[in-house]
Amino acid sequence: MALYVKKFGGSSVATPEKMLNIANRVLRDRKPGDKIVIVVSAMGDSTDDLLDLAAKVSDVNYARERDMLLSTGEQVSIALMAMTFKKLGVPAISLTGPQAGIVAGGGYGKATIDDVKPDRVFKELEAGNIVIVAGFQGMMPNGDIATLGRGGSDATAVALAGAMHADMCEIFTDVDGVYSADPRHVTGTIKMKEITNTEMLEMARLGAGVMQPRSVELGMKYHIPIHVRSTFTDEEGTIIREVCTMETRDDTVRGVAQDAHAARIAVLGLRNIPGVAYKIFSVLAENNITVDMIVQSVRNSNDDKTDIIFTIDDADLSDAKRVLDAMRDEGKVEEVIYDDDTAKVSVVGAGMLGRPGVAARMFGALGRAGVNIDIVSTSEISISCLILRKDLDKAVQAIHDEFFTAGEGR
Amino acid sequence: MALYVKKFGGSSVATPEKMLNIANRVLRDRKPGDKIVIVVSAMGDSTDDLLDLAAKVSDVNYARERDMLLSTGEQVSIALMAMTFKKLGVPAISLTGPQAGIVAGGGYGKATIDDVKPDRVFKELEAGNIVIVAGFQGMMPNGDIATLGRGGSDATAVALAGAMHADMCEIFTDVDGVYSADPRHVTGTIKMKEITNTEMLEMARLGAGVMQPRSVELGMKYHIPIHVRSTFTDEEGTIIREVCTMETRDDTVRGVAQDAHAARIAVLGLRNIPGVAYKIFSVLAENNITVDMIVQSVRNSNDDKTDIIFTIDDADLSDAKRVLDAMRDEGKVEEVIYDDDTAKVSVVGAGMLGRPGVAARMFGALGRAGVNIDIVSTSEISISCLILRKDLDKAVQAIHDEFFTAGEGR
Repeated sequence: MALYVKKFGGSSVATPEKMLNIANRVLRDRKPGDKIVIVVSAMGDSTDDLLDLAAKVSDVNYARERDMLLSTGEQVSIALMAMTFKKLGVPAISLTGPQAGIVAGGGYGKATIDDVKPDRVFKELEAGNIVIVAGFQGMMPNGDIATLGRGGSDATAVALAGAMHADMCEIFTDVDGVYSADPRHVTGTIKMKEITNTEMLEMARLGAGVMQPRSVELGMKYHIPIHVRSTFTDEEGTIIREVCTMETRDDTVRGVAQDAHAARIAVLGLRNIPGVAYKIFSVLAENNITVDMIVQSVRNSNDDKTDIIFTIDDADLSDAKRVLDAMRDEGKVEEVIYDDDTAKVSVVGAGMLGRPGVAARMFGALGRAGVNIDIVSTSEISISCLILRKDLDKAVQAIHDEFFTAGEGR
Repeated sequence: MALYVKKFGGSSVATPEKMLNIANRVLRDRKPGDKIVIVVSAMGDSTDDLLDLAAKVSDVNYARERDMLLSTGEQVSIALMAMTFKKLGVPAISLTGPQAGIVAGGGYGKATIDDVKPDRVFKELEAGNIVIVAGFQGMMPNGDIATLGRGGSDATAVALAGAMHADMCEIFTDVDGVYSADPRHVTGTIKMKEITNTEMLEMARLGAGVMQPRSVELGMKYHIPIHVRSTFTDEEGTIIREVCTMETRDDTVRGVAQDAHAARIAVLGLRNIPGVAYKIFSVLAENNITVDMIVQSVRNSNDDKTDIIFTIDDADLSDAKRVLDAMRDEGKVEEVIYDDDTAKVSVVGAGMLGRPGVAARMFGALGRAGVNIDIVSTSEISISCLILRKDLDKAVQAIHDEFFTAGEGR
C-alpha cells in the first residue's frame, strides 16, 4: 500500500482513446490499497488552439486573462479523465489546481508553487477515489488562477507528491528514462537506473532536455523520488533521487550532455580596471540574457587592455548584439565578435569530484577525434568544452565511447 | 451614473469579431461614471463540442464531471471578452462564477443560485474595471463547480444585479423584446414597453419563450427591472418590472400566448369516489409529468362513474401512456383516450381581473373564426382555451385582432 502521484503530459491525453489507455494502465499497475493521484496536462494541441483564439483578439499578452483562458485546457482534461475512470467502474474525481490546494505566487503565466494545501485531495482519496488534478495551474492569494509556465505540470506533480509525502512521483513521458547521452545523436547510450537530483540538474543545465530543472529542484526540496518513464511501455525508467543505492552507482562519469545553442561572444579591448567586466554582465542581466561560460584573458603585461569571451543561448544573440554594439559605439570596448557556429559538450558525474583524470581523458578523446577545444569550464560535478557546432555529434560520440564503452560509466 | 448588469448569450459571443462588436456597443452606450458588469455564455456551439467529447468517453451523465467540463466554455468566453476590452484600451477583468461569488446549491447540472457574494465584483468595479462574469456556473459549498441548467446565464445576470442593487439588468438576445403575441405566427403584433413580472411569468407558463421563468422570478424577488432587448439593434426592448408606469399600462389584455405542445388525455370511467383523481395525478407527478388544464365531469346522476380530461406537454405523452395504460389494465379506469393534435391559446393581463367581458370577447372571436373550444381554464390573470392544433394560428390571430387592432391593448 503506497501513495503515488502520476503525471501524464498532453500527448498522452490527446484523445478519449488515449485517456482510456492511460486509465487501464494505471488500474493494471495499482496494487490493493494503493492511493493514486494523477496530474494531467491539456489535451494535445488544445493549448495552442486557445492561444490562436487569443491571437485573434490581440497580439498583446494580457497575462492574467491568458491564464484564465489557458487553464481551461487542463480542466477539460481532468473532467474527461475522471469520466473515463468512472466509465470503467472505478470511483474518480477531478480537481482544478486551486481545488487541489496549489497556491501560486510570482507573476501570471510564470507562477511559482508557493505552497500546497492538499486537504481536499486527501479527503477524496480517503473516500476511495482516484483523484485527477489539473497540472500547470494554481490559485494566487487574491483568488485568481495563474499558470505555472514551462514544466508547470511536472512541477504540480512533484510539489503535490512532496506535500502529501507520497512514496513516488512518476512522470510519464515520451522518452523512457534518462540516458548517458542523447540517444537521438549518440550510439551505445545506456539508460540510467538512478541519478541524483544534483546530477540531473547539472545535466539539464548543460542541455539534457528530459526534465525541467524546477521539478528536479522541487524533488530535492521535498525529498521525493521522481520516476521518469515512458507512457507507452511498462519498462522501468530512471529514478531521480537524493542518494542513489550503492550497486547502481559508478564512480566517475554519469552522462554526456550537449547544447547546440551555445553562441560565443568575444569582447575585445576592455580597459583592464575593476568594474569593467561587471558593467558588461550587469547590462546583459538587465536585458534578461543569461551568460554561461566565461574566460577573461590579459593580452600581455605591457597592455592595460583585456579581452572577455563568454557564451549565451543563441536565442538571445540579437538582443546581446544590440546591447554590446551600443557599448562599442560609446567607445567602452574596442570590438565585439559574435559566433553562432559554436556548441558545448559536457561530462557530468558527482563521482568526478577530486578525480583529475576525467578532464585529461575527455580532452584526449576530443583530440583523437580531431575536435578543437575553444573554452573549458568546470563545476564541482561537470566539465564543459566549447567547440565548433559542426563537430558536436562527433565530439559527444567520442567522449561517450571513452567513458561508457569502456564499461566504467552507467 | 448607474450600475448595469448586461448579459450576452452564446450567439452574441460566437467569434472574436462578434465580441468586438459587443464591446464597442457597450462602450458607446456607457455614460461617464457608469459601472458595467457583463455576463456571458459559452461561445456559439462550444458547449455542444464539449458534450460531444464527453459522449466519446461515455453515454452516462456523470453530472459533477460534466459540470467541471462544461464550465470551461464560459471561462473561455470571459477571458477573450476581457482581452477584447483591454485591446480597446479599456480596463477590464474576467471572473468565473465562483470568483464572482455565485453560490450554487441543489444538484450538479441544474443548480440553483442560493446566494451571491459580490465582494470581488465590487472591488474590481471600484478599481475602474468593466467586470466580465461567467454565466451558467457557481460554486457549491464544498468548493465544486456546478452549472445552473436551462436559462442559467440569464439567472446569473439577474441574481448578480439583485445582490449588487444594480439599476437595471439588460438581457441581450436575438429577439428585440416581448410582443403582444409571437411575431413569427401573428401579424400586427405590438412590442410592449413594459410588462410586470407576474404577467411575464404567466406568458412564459402559457408558452411565450422569450425568458425562462426562473430569471423573471429572480427579478421579482430582488426587485430588479429586466430589460429584454436585441443584441443587433439599438432600439429599446421590453422592461420587465414589478409595477409598470401608468402611461404605458392598459387595462385589459397584455398579450396572447400560444402553446402547440399541449396534448389532451381523457380518462373515462373512474369510480366517482374521493381519492381516485388523486391517485391518477400522484402517479403522474411521481413520473415527473406536469399536468396543466383539468376538467372533471359527472356523466349523469344515476352513474357512479366519472371522466377526467386534462392536458400535459406532448413530450411527456409516451411516459403518460405507459403509466395510464397500466392503470387501465389493472381495471382502475375503463378507458384512456390520447390526443396530440390539440393546442392551447391564452390571453394574459393583470388588468383582466374582475372584468368578465374579456372571456366573452375571446370566445366570440374564436367562434367567428370557426374555432371550437374544447376546454377552458382560468387563472387570476389569464384565460386559456384548448383547441385543435390545426386551428392554432387562426385562433391566435383572431384573438389578437380582437384585443389589439381595436387599440385597447398595447
